[in-house]
Amino acid sequence: MNEYIFIDKWKIIENRYRPERTRAGESLFSIGNGVMGGRANFEERFSGDTLQGNYIGGVYYPDKTRVGWWKNGYPESFAKMLNSAFWCGVDVTVAGESIDLAVCRVADYYRELDMRTGTLLRRVSLTTPSGRRVDIEALRFVSMERPELGVLRYTVTLPDRSAEVTLESFIDGDVRNEDANYDEKFWRPVSQSRCGLVMQTLKSGFVVGWAMENRIDGASFIDTGRTECPAETATVTVEAGGSVTLYKFVGICSSLNHESSDIAEAAARVADRAASAGFDVVSEEHKAGWASIWDNADIEIEGDDEAQQGIRYCIFQLLQTYTGRDSRLNVGPKGFTGEKYGGGTYWDTEAYCLPFYMATAGREVARNLLLYRYNQLDAAIENARKLGFDGGAALYPMVTVDGSECHNEWEITFEEIHRNGAVAYAIYNYVRYTGDSDYIAGYGLEVLISIARFWAQRVNFSAPKGKYVMLGVTGPNEYENNVNNNWYTLYIARWCMRYAAESAERVRSERPDDYRRIEEKRGFDYEAETARWREICDNMYFPYDAENDIFLQQDGYMDKKQMLVCDLPASERPINQKWSWDRILRSCFIKQADVLQGLYFFRDDFDVDTIKRNFRFYEPRTVHESSLSPCVHAVLAAAIGDTRKAEEMYLRTSRLDLDDYNNENREGLHITSMAGSWLAVVEGFGGMRVEGDRLVFSPSLPDAWHSMTFKVRFRGKRLTVMATKDGAVVSEEERSTF
Amino acid sequence: MNEYIFIDKWKIIENRYRPERTRAGESLFSIGNGVMGGRANFEERFSGDTLQGNYIGGVYYPDKTRVGWWKNGYPESFAKMLNSAFWCGVDVTVAGESIDLAVCRVADYYRELDMRTGTLLRRVSLTTPSGRRVDIEALRFVSMERPELGVLRYTVTLPDRSAEVTLESFIDGDVRNEDANYDEKFWRPVSQSRCGLVMQTLKSGFVVGWAMENRIDGASFIDTGRTECPAETATVTVEAGGSVTLYKFVGICSSLNHESSDIAEAAARVADRAASAGFDVVSEEHKAGWASIWDNADIEIEGDDEAQQGIRYCIFQLLQTYTGRDSRLNVGPKGFTGEKYGGGTYWDTEAYCLPFYMATAGREVARNLLLYRYNQLDAAIENARKLGFDGGAALYPMVTVDGSECHNEWEITFEEIHRNGAVAYAIYNYVRYTGDSDYIAGYGLEVLISIARFWAQRVNFSAPKGKYVMLGVTGPNEYENNVNNNWYTLYIARWCMRYAAESAERVRSERPDDYRRIEEKRGFDYEAETARWREICDNMYFPYDAENDIFLQQDGYMDKKQMLVCDLPASERPINQKWSWDRILRSCFIKQADVLQGLYFFRDDFDVDTIKRNFRFYEPRTVHESSLSPCVHAVLAAAIGDTRKAEEMYLRTSRLDLDDYNNENREGLHITSMAGSWLAVVEGFGGMRVEGDRLVFSPSLPDAWHSMTFKVRFRGKRLTVMATKDGAVVSEEERSTF
Repeated sequence: MNEYIFIDKWKIIENRYRPERTRAGESLFSIGNGVMGGRANFEERFSGDTLQGNYIGGVYYPDKTRVGWWKNGYPESFAKMLNSAFWCGVDVTVAGESIDLAVCRVADYYRELDMRTGTLLRRVSLTTPSGRRVDIEALRFVSMERPELGVLRYTVTLPDRSAEVTLESFIDGDVRNEDANYDEKFWRPVSQSRCGLVMQTLKSGFVVGWAMENRIDGASFIDTGRTECPAETATVTVEAGGSVTLYKFVGICSSLNHESSDIAEAAARVADRAASAGFDVVSEEHKAGWASIWDNADIEIEGDDEAQQGIRYCIFQLLQTYTGRDSRLNVGPKGFTGEKYGGGTYWDTEAYCLPFYMATAGREVARNLLLYRYNQLDAAIENARKLGFDGGAALYPMVTVDGSECHNEWEITFEEIHRNGAVAYAIYNYVRYTGDSDYIAGYGLEVLISIARFWAQRVNFSAPKGKYVMLGVTGPNEYENNVNNNWYTLYIARWCMRYAAESAERVRSERPDDYRRIEEKRGFDYEAETARWREICDNMYFPYDAENDIFLQQDGYMDKKQMLVCDLPASERPINQKWSWDRILRSCFIKQADVLQGLYFFRDDFDVDTIKRNFRFYEPRTVHESSLSPCVHAVLAAAIGDTRKAEEMYLRTSRLDLDDYNNENREGLHITSMAGSWLAVVEGFGGMRVEGDRLVFSPSLPDAWHSMTFKVRFRGKRLTVMATKDGAVVSEEERSTF
Repeated sequence: MNEYIFIDKWKIIENRYRPERTRAGESLFSIGNGVMGGRANFEERFSGDTLQGNYIGGVYYPDKTRVGWWKNGYPESFAKMLNSAFWCGVDVTVAGESIDLAVCRVADYYRELDMRTGTLLRRVSLTTPSGRRVDIEALRFVSMERPELGVLRYTVTLPDRSAEVTLESFIDGDVRNEDANYDEKFWRPVSQSRCGLVMQTLKSGFVVGWAMENRIDGASFIDTGRTECPAETATVTVEAGGSVTLYKFVGICSSLNHESSDIAEAAARVADRAASAGFDVVSEEHKAGWASIWDNADIEIEGDDEAQQGIRYCIFQLLQTYTGRDSRLNVGPKGFTGEKYGGGTYWDTEAYCLPFYMATAGREVARNLLLYRYNQLDAAIENARKLGFDGGAALYPMVTVDGSECHNEWEITFEEIHRNGAVAYAIYNYVRYTGDSDYIAGYGLEVLISIARFWAQRVNFSAPKGKYVMLGVTGPNEYENNVNNNWYTLYIARWCMRYAAESAERVRSERPDDYRRIEEKRGFDYEAETARWREICDNMYFPYDAENDIFLQQDGYMDKKQMLVCDLPASERPINQKWSWDRILRSCFIKQADVLQGLYFFRDDFDVDTIKRNFRFYEPRTVHESSLSPCVHAVLAAAIGDTRKAEEMYLRTSRLDLDDYNNENREGLHITSMAGSWLAVVEGFGGMRVEGDRLVFSPSLPDAWHSMTFKVRFRGKRLTVMATKDGAVVSEEERSTF
């Protein structure tokens, strides 16, 4: 744990420069606007250890797959979010000395991320090797109102001696992904001008343009550009006690939204317009954008400032990552804060993130998350076909950017198929929450049919059991691979087939035109297919342990040596670092909620005693070595009245990144699991659930919390819910601003 | 199938030049002497597609592991047999034109591998681009009598016009492995002289020296060497109808057998002595060496020349790969014929190769194969420790060169643990065949104890079953991964523990000094450990299918959709090329003998009816997509009197490489499965078995075979067995020569 972050309700503050935490800090102070974003790299030259990272949503590169041993069906490439040009670079020279925090002595250091305004501020006082004092203040943001705009205000002050200060503002396109499989470069330059750069991604052919407008009062710039790096330099004499301020406006436009041939011009236009409007105007617009977002999404906690900071940080990062303006974008596990996992979309989106965006950003945003999968349906069908499924069966990828599978590890890629269920469940969850049942006829049914087709082929009839079984599966608990009859996967598969059949029936009778369109487009044979699904559903095998009266995670689970997590010495945890994979696999320990994930999704199907029995069996066996696990346990613990356990579970993730529990911030933040923290607060402590057309709340707050006030949108209304020990007060709000 | 090889009892002959088969031919015509060997690359410059390959047994490089997703417990590197300097190079220029088969027009082409003498001969008549006719004859071998010597006789004839002929004889050290994980070079040069080169392997530090002596009657050489490539060139005027012959003698010495500082000199000495003795002498010595080998190992088949050629080719390649002179060497799956599988040792050695070497090359050779594992026992203990086993438990690697694990695919590396059983079984098999029970007290017991310790920890007690179970295993059938209770693995594990306990008891009572040494060295607690093993063995769970009265391959196998191989359309085979891995895993199809492998090893434990029932269940479900599978089925089929099936199985491997069934010769030959062909012939058709101290034979020949005569060594005797339809005649031979 690294308790170096100040507790503040709205700000993330560090006030010491710790070189060994440079990468971690770069992640923690990341900024984004849902369309693009990047790590909090220093603007000026830095020769220390750093992971420079700037990412543009939807711009990816299919990196050739790297494996030890190839298996038929593996994808040829892994589509990765690309590290792209470093747009905010400013190299500073004072009296001939280059400013570099790794070389200068840092006297004072202050960095703050203002979550209320989405602004990153850094103040440094340093002494150069020759003994000259220099102060720097850098403030930057990527605009919430102008999604293609990055803005930097960069001030150099000389407290004690006058000198010539040279500021070279540049856009560096010569970047690489650290996680490139074969150490290859992913970009080629297209064109370059004094202040502009256009690059194209290799293979995928995305074109991205950057253009900058630099302003220093009373100074002029000369062209000092290099290949793949347009640059402009101004030299100013700064008096003792005086300062110089650079305003830098950068337009960043891609072929996702522009004709390739227009991109240089489009980027220049964005930069030019912002520069003309001026820093104050664009800054105020940006703040107003964030104010309106917070007005829909905030959670206020009275009585626990750490928790307050923690949950706001989660909400803030989620909203920096995805704003739902574009159905081609999605939520990567690390957002725009790092390269790990390639920035692709996992089932995290449907299982954890959707409820957050649905409740805070509204129906259109949630709908865009669903449309992302709808638009990738044909790719999911192709993905299933590659594995040997036919008849329009769809298997959504484990990780994807463009709809094709990126993952290559057979026990996950081919077997962790429960993800398909989450995609269907999200449709149900969306309709249940928003009441937008039109979505089924318009889009959802095609997805549901294609997923149901997959499950119907993925099971087989077992003669000895006289039931349909599902062999060779990896459940949510990835510490078991290639098991037979994972209870969760069977349960969600059966649910999918039933929901698909019901939905088909409803659309058929209520929306005959839509039905005929879908029937033809998907070659759907209602009678035969739904009969088959029902036959399977009515004869599905579910593993069960009679002794404990619990749903059994998979066949043979009780053959394992039964131990509890509390029996494990601390020195052996986390087991994913301390144990061999062999030992992990053969142990009874559970990485993340598996049976309990099913009880969470389908809570209405089970009585409280059933949830209790299963919770009390599985919770003590779960090591929660996925950041997505504790939130589910927290919600269930709250549901069965175990507030203490709910709080324990909540604390495991709420400040995961702020306190860097696992010492892995350097790789980027756990964006999707931040949605889990929101779930734990709102669905756990807030006890929020949909019942029919109503939203109900049954709060149970942690001891220290006096009250918790959160905002949700529901069926066109904006609700403020104030939960205390005594219950919840829900009020419907008029639109307001801060 | 590529029926371009002439049927000849002793020779492999091709008489057409087929450029598209260059790589395949390079494999097929490979030569070796058990210590080193290489592919049949053309000596002269060749600009076509080629895999140049020359390998020295025991000289390896630990190539950094390449994986998609790292798992704890994976080895850091994969030790690979190294492609080393090309020793037999001769670049030929005729009247200024370079001779290159990819450029010249080839009129006549003849290549022959004489298995009787281990000699590779090639004759080519070609026309240069300018229209000049040139004939080449190249004959080369690596000496059986002088294991560090390679010899080449290279003749250029000009049939119609006189010209200047330039021959540049070189040793090219600038080579790479095609299968390098990161495209790195594995060698660095140490020193170079006009005719000598010394190189050192990176990381592993092996030093290897090459030195050549070149002789052309009446010609002198000049130094034309380049970096990492010593070369000497002679220019000779050849008259019309005349020729020039180069004799090249190359010494190849490594730090396995020499002080590093002496290597240049040692190699020069080998070359010099051979040159002084002259081509005819070293050639005759070499032939005599092979004659003596054949005298012990030959199989003669009357009535089927294809089968004759096939089995001789298998024997020949096995003996080129391993001669058993050095316990640091072993039998790689591709021998010296290609890079695939890295040249490491698999369980193939113990399960398939040992019986062949034991019967044909004798006790000392077989003992060296066992000592290889004995010498790697501590590495195997370390290998188990890395996975979480303690108390001196040993897990032999899936693939190894130096004792450490090279493989990195969790379901194999961590789970295909039956290999440990094969190492123990080989000790039993060796003692049973040779009667050398001293080996147990001297070496074997330590290995047996360490392996038994592994099994005792690898099982766990299942409360529901009330038995010891073994979870998370991959059996010999690699088309199932991470299964529970693989019958074969359980069976051999129990056998290992029992055999270890019995052996310990015997050594303890009969060889108390040895026992005390072992007890101390291995920290062995006889009472506690053997009691524990016996407890496990007496309560071991074995999956069984009552309906078919068969041993069940693993838990849940009958839950699979049951199909037979005969139901598979030809277009879907081999499934490992036509199906996704997902589909393969979930099918009931078996890659190679699994339960049947157990029935083969432990045939005495089962009555014929049991073997029949299991054979008739599993054989129709086995796709034999491992070349190691059909031999086991062949032996069992013969044992249950199904000669037709035995013959069918035998035909699947006997000419696998000669006819290039799977179109994969280009990668190298299936050396270890050639031992399977020998097993099918000798143990299958010959019906050879050990009963107590006797060798018994119960032949059942294929219809076409009039008779089969094979040689075996047994308990100090050399036997000739002539099998006919009427039975077997066994005669004890005096040592004889051809």
